Amino acid sequence: MSDFDYQQLDDIIHSRIRLAIMSVLVSVEEADFVFLREKVNATDGNLSTHIKKLESAGYVAVNKSFENRKPISRYILTQKGKKAFEIYIQKLESLLKK
Amino acid sequence: MSDFDYQQLDDIIHSRIRLAIMSVLVSVEEADFVFLREKVNATDGNLSTHIKKLESAGYVAVNKSFENRKPISRYILTQKGKKAFEIYIQKLESLLKK
Repeated sequence: MSDFDYQQLDDIIHSRIRLAIMSVLVSVEEADFVFLREKVNATDGNLSTHIKKLESAGYVAVNKSFENRKPISRYILTQKGKKAFEIYIQKLESLLKK
Repeated sequence: MSDFDYQQLDDIIHSRIRLAIMSVLVSVEEADFVFLREKVNATDGNLSTHIKKLESAGYVAVNKSFENRKPISRYILTQKGKKAFEIYIQKLESLLKK
């Protein structure tokens, strides 16, 4: 397979917004919705949609709890998500460097 | 602006196939259609569509000529394309490394 084969890049991760979400989550233990929204600079609807897609793929998990009686959702990368991100970066590097 | 702002990534370059095309072109002087198609692993139609999008953005230019009486199209990155690719890589790195 050619290093330039575009299909080697995980399509679930590659979308700009999902790549940004994954990049935030790989850099922190966990992130709540508002923090993610500000970092990624997305609208609520757009962020929700793409978090759901990452959850469906098993890359992101959510912990729901209450803080001062307010519901709060905290997002983390799963082991599967971390592995997929690692592979994505490797493939991206071999695409860009050769 | 947050380093994780997904909109900092040039959308014209970021699509997987266009990123692969740009990556091939940055690594060679010029590439003909068949060479690009094999490297990127795309269908004719898909490759044409995305090369046209890169041409419209002024990132890629085409030189058409004849070789042994057969028409041949050679693609190169323009100065604008090289600059845009450079900026894209910088933004991508700051997104991925922080």
